[in-house]
Amino acid sequence: MKDSVSLKVSLPVFVLVFEVIIIALYAVFVTYDDDTNAKLQNNETSPMENSLYRDYPYFADVQVMIFIGFGCLLAFFRFYGFGGMVFNFLTATFAIQWAILMQGFFQFYYDGKIHLGVINLVNAEFACAVVLISFGAVLGKTSPVQLLVMASLEIPIFAVTEWAVLKYIRINDAGGTILIHIFACYFGLGVTFMLYRPSLNDGHAKEITSYHSDILSVMGTLFLWVFWPSFNSALTFKGDDQHRAILHTFIGLSSSTITAFALSALFNKRGKLTMADIQNVTLAGGVTVGASVDMMISPVAAYALGVMGCTACFFGYKYLTPFMAYRMRIQDQCGIHNLHGLTGIISATAGICAILLATEETYGPSMYQIFSHRAPPEGDPQLLELQKVIPGLKPGLGRTAREQALYQVAAVFTTIGASTVGGLLTGLVMKFPSLASPSDKNCFNDELFFELPSDFSSVEAPLTYEGKGQMNPMDTKV
Amino acid sequence: MKDSVSLKVSLPVFVLVFEVIIIALYAVFVTYDDDTNAKLQNNETSPMENSLYRDYPYFADVQVMIFIGFGCLLAFFRFYGFGGMVFNFLTATFAIQWAILMQGFFQFYYDGKIHLGVINLVNAEFACAVVLISFGAVLGKTSPVQLLVMASLEIPIFAVTEWAVLKYIRINDAGGTILIHIFACYFGLGVTFMLYRPSLNDGHAKEITSYHSDILSVMGTLFLWVFWPSFNSALTFKGDDQHRAILHTFIGLSSSTITAFALSALFNKRGKLTMADIQNVTLAGGVTVGASVDMMISPVAAYALGVMGCTACFFGYKYLTPFMAYRMRIQDQCGIHNLHGLTGIISATAGICAILLATEETYGPSMYQIFSHRAPPEGDPQLLELQKVIPGLKPGLGRTAREQALYQVAAVFTTIGASTVGGLLTGLVMKFPSLASPSDKNCFNDELFFELPSDFSSVEAPLTYEGKGQMNPMDTKV
Amino acid sequence: MKDSVSLKVSLPVFVLVFEVIIIALYAVFVTYDDDTNAKLQNNETSPMENSLYRDYPYFADVQVMIFIGFGCLLAFFRFYGFGGMVFNFLTATFAIQWAILMQGFFQFYYDGKIHLGVINLVNAEFACAVVLISFGAVLGKTSPVQLLVMASLEIPIFAVTEWAVLKYIRINDAGGTILIHIFACYFGLGVTFMLYRPSLNDGHAKEITSYHSDILSVMGTLFLWVFWPSFNSALTFKGDDQHRAILHTFIGLSSSTITAFALSALFNKRGKLTMADIQNVTLAGGVTVGASVDMMISPVAAYALGVMGCTACFFGYKYLTPFMAYRMRIQDQCGIHNLHGLTGIISATAGICAILLATEETYGPSMYQIFSHRAPPEGDPQLLELQKVIPGLKPGLGRTAREQALYQVAAVFTTIGASTVGGLLTGLVMKFPSLASPSDKNCFNDELFFELPSDFSSVEAPLTYEGKGQMNPMDTKV
Repeated sequence: MKDSVSLKVSLPVFVLVFEVIIIALYAVFVTYDDDTNAKLQNNETSPMENSLYRDYPYFADVQVMIFIGFGCLLAFFRFYGFGGMVFNFLTATFAIQWAILMQGFFQFYYDGKIHLGVINLVNAEFACAVVLISFGAVLGKTSPVQLLVMASLEIPIFAVTEWAVLKYIRINDAGGTILIHIFACYFGLGVTFMLYRPSLNDGHAKEITSYHSDILSVMGTLFLWVFWPSFNSALTFKGDDQHRAILHTFIGLSSSTITAFALSALFNKRGKLTMADIQNVTLAGGVTVGASVDMMISPVAAYALGVMGCTACFFGYKYLTPFMAYRMRIQDQCGIHNLHGLTGIISATAGICAILLATEETYGPSMYQIFSHRAPPEGDPQLLELQKVIPGLKPGLGRTAREQALYQVAAVFTTIGASTVGGLLTGLVMKFPSLASPSDKNCFNDELFFELPSDFSSVEAPLTYEGKGQMNPMDTKV
Repeated sequence: MKDSVSLKVSLPVFVLVFEVIIIALYAVFVTYDDDTNAKLQNNETSPMENSLYRDYPYFADVQVMIFIGFGCLLAFFRFYGFGGMVFNFLTATFAIQWAILMQGFFQFYYDGKIHLGVINLVNAEFACAVVLISFGAVLGKTSPVQLLVMASLEIPIFAVTEWAVLKYIRINDAGGTILIHIFACYFGLGVTFMLYRPSLNDGHAKEITSYHSDILSVMGTLFLWVFWPSFNSALTFKGDDQHRAILHTFIGLSSSTITAFALSALFNKRGKLTMADIQNVTLAGGVTVGASVDMMISPVAAYALGVMGCTACFFGYKYLTPFMAYRMRIQDQCGIHNLHGLTGIISATAGICAILLATEETYGPSMYQIFSHRAPPEGDPQLLELQKVIPGLKPGLGRTAREQALYQVAAVFTTIGASTVGGLLTGLVMKFPSLASPSDKNCFNDELFFELPSDFSSVEAPLTYEGKGQMNPMDTKV
Repeated sequence: MKDSVSLKVSLPVFVLVFEVIIIALYAVFVTYDDDTNAKLQNNETSPMENSLYRDYPYFADVQVMIFIGFGCLLAFFRFYGFGGMVFNFLTATFAIQWAILMQGFFQFYYDGKIHLGVINLVNAEFACAVVLISFGAVLGKTSPVQLLVMASLEIPIFAVTEWAVLKYIRINDAGGTILIHIFACYFGLGVTFMLYRPSLNDGHAKEITSYHSDILSVMGTLFLWVFWPSFNSALTFKGDDQHRAILHTFIGLSSSTITAFALSALFNKRGKLTMADIQNVTLAGGVTVGASVDMMISPVAAYALGVMGCTACFFGYKYLTPFMAYRMRIQDQCGIHNLHGLTGIISATAGICAILLATEETYGPSMYQIFSHRAPPEGDPQLLELQKVIPGLKPGLGRTAREQALYQVAAVFTTIGASTVGGLLTGLVMKFPSLASPSDKNCFNDELFFELPSDFSSVEAPLTYEGKGQMNPMDTKV
């Protein structure tokens, strides 16, 4: 293989450099937060009230999603199972440790230190999810070094955007629709635009699945499905807010799933089910309920959002992904624009509607907790009145529903702008030579980056015998 | 393939009709319960005491069992891995959203509304488990539309039975032995009786496993095994009751597992292990401890129950399943009668013994909490006395142990009766044409309902070369 | 196959004998502990404060590691997937029920009874992990009966060692580095030394992986990775101690993972990644942080420990494992000496450093809780002073940091000594005939102990055609 590339130098050098940087920064800046610091424990602190017990269950669930859910889901290519699962592992691990620092500087920095507890890890896992979603756009066409470069740039760009949106625009986005899904989607599209490979529009011999890889990928979907309620609710207020978030996510996913099956059969010419739909479109409901997931939208609205998100996602895969690839030079390998972009826009819109419709009649005084920026500002006597009923209520900005809705719109556009520009720049950097980028011919092939067991050749066998005619890239471009 | 069937019309129509019905009913009847309603939160409610934190961990564990445990376990056929895993996904998702409504009307309906929280989802998952167990009887021989029809009938029949037994007969059944396992088993047998296919008694060329499908199926078993303690304890009283339920389930499963290995080797003519035993018989202990799982039966009794249940289950697979198929027209594809029926009967009997043996000497006053129908009725002065020691104790019916035991017997027979009749009727409906039922020849074959990757033909290869002689349906009829 | 062996007699006899023993001992000695005993519940006990809710989440996570994590990880051989996963299931189940008794006698025995709750199960799972690690040394070369014999001896030897070390030497070892990892490693090496098979040093035709088995094994790694923080923190003090344990484990694993990728590429002659490294070396950080996991070592130290442990582990696989096999007659099949031994020694050393460096300035008064043997002894007036600030503080031994460090050293040597001798003796017993030990030729082959699906021959196919030249035992000897 003359066009082979090696990780022998690039990967170790990248890792070594970053480890030195991370060790230096951790040594200087990272310390324990109040709940992990032994010195602050005394007879006035109760061990079981440590924040650990509020955060860790959700952290563990999200870990399963990140490492096993994404890992299996991305292993759907027949010859790229190692790559999908293992590069996900590498990228996720790297992204989290980097995000701890980057988010730390913006969100958890005081007294000259970043303060660390499990809550930071939860936040870092969300940042990591952003990177993994973007990864979906370029799956099979990038080396692990390129992925690490992507992560090392996407994480700080995300951290800045997140900080700016949360601190200056101040939005409601419990499920991370805007900051996670929309950001990740447009960043990924920016990257893949820069890495455009015209020859891949005609399909690639290895861009296919196998019976076993399809099953593995469905397992990934199931792990994501099962723990998605934890993902969408990990950062809500505790109590009824988190309870609603879990309920809505479950309902949205359920309606989304049966809709995906129906559409898959309906639009297949022989009335059969397509595994790519089951692997991806079923999950659309989880994203679609995101922006309003903790609000009093009523269970039926969560159900309807699941159906709508799923429908948009399905047609996105069917029509938009090929269109973008052929006409817009955007090759969206896993269709992240359908599963995270279109659904994200619907979700953000639904969130805005829910904000506009929110009244004290429905929410009672806790409206000012959920829509915290609508709470009266510091010093307002109404605030004191409310704090009698909702003890922990923090002063807000006194925004009206309409104002908050406009800020949400601003946040969507800011996020799309920042992520697109960030993605384009990052894509440019990823084109640097010496990042071990695979040639077109070597895409979607584990042979390039892995020592392979001897039966890999037999995994290939059917190809040799049945020729290229069997493969329709549009069927497999999930 | 001339006898091909298509899902192009039937599946979308079914889903669309049901989605319209569900949206209408959700819109009119479904609202939040007290723990998900923002309006009811104030300075007297403590967020961390929300019922979410008591119910969600068990809900999440049961989710893993339903979607991943069952999904992998049912994917054991070599050519029906997509079907096993994916139809499980579809059926489960549908069953849960339907059960939320059906159980809602019977158990959570007041003030003209069904009130929703995670506790409803837990209950709905149990109803869903009922459907999936019944599914095991007809695995590989039904279309997804037939499965949805089955679920749409089984759920209301189950909800009525559950409500009648709990409200009028009033039983102890913490692990759901009677209402879940026995109901599901006889319902499934009723359905498969109606769908009898004489030609399949001679074995089917595709009714075999593969090396990979067997491993996948064991993974399913392991997920069920690991989380079964959560399943058996999700609806017990909190505190020591739930603690015992977890302990007994674990012990029962452990003794059941090593017994299954011993029997598998002992009754194999070459002294080898059979994967079907490991996939199924190991789990028998989880069912067998069910009916007495929260009682003070002592750890050794849980151990012994595991051994007994496992033994009954093993011999059921060996002798009863073939007998039922050949002589009684009951083709029990996954042997649910062994894993859920026989063990269920043993478990119910053990539960009755535990009820008869329960004394205040062993349980202390909390006996009247566990055996709640034995508590003194409203107005009885003894009740007030007991409530001083057990604050939350509810008035009971003042039943004696003997009376309660008789009611348990009545519940078993009622459940068997209702489920058998329900199963037969449902099976009749499932025979309607246009439900895309596969022909005998197309059973156990993903080709009928799925777009398949090109290597599916090579998954088939060994068959072509080695002929039918390799396959012994009795070996594979797990 | 003339050198075939059968489980027909040995396995059932072993299981039957043990079940009789266990039932007898459970009946006489095992009862409920205070949190599972209904009789002790009254108006002064609060159900939600039952120890169940503190222990069960960690128990459930460790269950996933034991049954699914280890199960998948050990299924990495191409022809031994059933064996790896299923013998792990059998051995684990047996080990736990046996450990409940053995640890029970040493740690939970009072009033003439072993008292049982979920906390016993957590401890038993740790004992089980010890057996499964040792199993790694002899994977593929032992019959299930031999494994049960090993477990039946290793569990009591472990229970005695654990009891002696905890009761007489008294150490800090929150993550179980010394008692779990070091014990398991040297016990396993002792066993494999006795079971030395010279012919296997030249490689074995079946000692290879397949594309699917490698993916399955990575899934096992991911499950271990994800839940390792729960493993390392399950037995720490609640509150900030457990919080730190989770944080450090996560950080150590993260740095270990990216280091493993870098080393794998750097030391491969073509700059490719080796799956065995990703399956094993990535996990080294979890062991390395173990001994100091709950101490105030600072996040950067956890990071550095991950890098160090990973590096030692990697070079162990590369140089030490072959050396031990050829020169020392120690065939360490899964390289447990690298993943548990070398990292264990590093971890124990780091723990000693952390003990020596611990000051009240860093820890505050809770230093005497974490380093409980440094607390003033009963009657010391300083103890009363401290108990005012740390209410639950128990009297200690008044050791200095230096003294405690010396006791840690003593514990390491005691553990290595006990485990090595125990392993050698156990290996001797395992050589008894009639334990169905496989011949050299039949190692790493499911055919010996399992009824196999007909496609097992095609799993073998590539071997037949491509000959032995493809296989390099050093590549696959993970």
